[in-house]
Amino acid sequence: MTAYTATVEVRLKHGVLDPEAETTGRALERLGFELEDLRAADLFEVDLDAESADGAAERAGEMAERLLANPTIHDYEVTVEER
Amino acid sequence: MTAYTATVEVRLKHGVLDPEAETTGRALERLGFELEDLRAADLFEVDLDAESADGAAERAGEMAERLLANPTIHDYEVTVEER
Repeated sequence: MTAYTATVEVRLKHGVLDPEAETTGRALERLGFELEDLRAADLFEVDLDAESADGAAERAGEMAERLLANPTIHDYEVTVEER
Repeated sequence: MTAYTATVEVRLKHGVLDPEAETTGRALERLGFELEDLRAADLFEVDLDAESADGAAERAGEMAERLLANPTIHDYEVTVEER
């Protein structure tokens, strides 16, 4: 078994409204910052042991499907690094 | 002016308790997943125009200091890409 860190990035699908990100962007503008757009995402770093990087990525993908993301409104991306 | 996307990753400083991440990790374990640890972070992608990548990174860093992060409890990391 090897120790891996799987990073799961969870973001709203394109077209799903994100009022929180919109509010954050507007608040930055009110502070005087110029920006075109702001998007927010959640990042989960999961330390796990697996036989291979592919195995770790697969397990992290299942975690995203089952709990970390809501497949109806979210896309997610898994990357794996040895720890 | 060039169009950049600055990514600001905001995470709790080492040692600051994160009950939400702990709950998420425990929920995954209850679902039958084996993991060593889970950490959560917020990701902000800011589209902005700037003279240079350094200029864009500096501006995004100011956004983090003023609004996106709480310097008392958060560390943040800025990366910049041309859009």
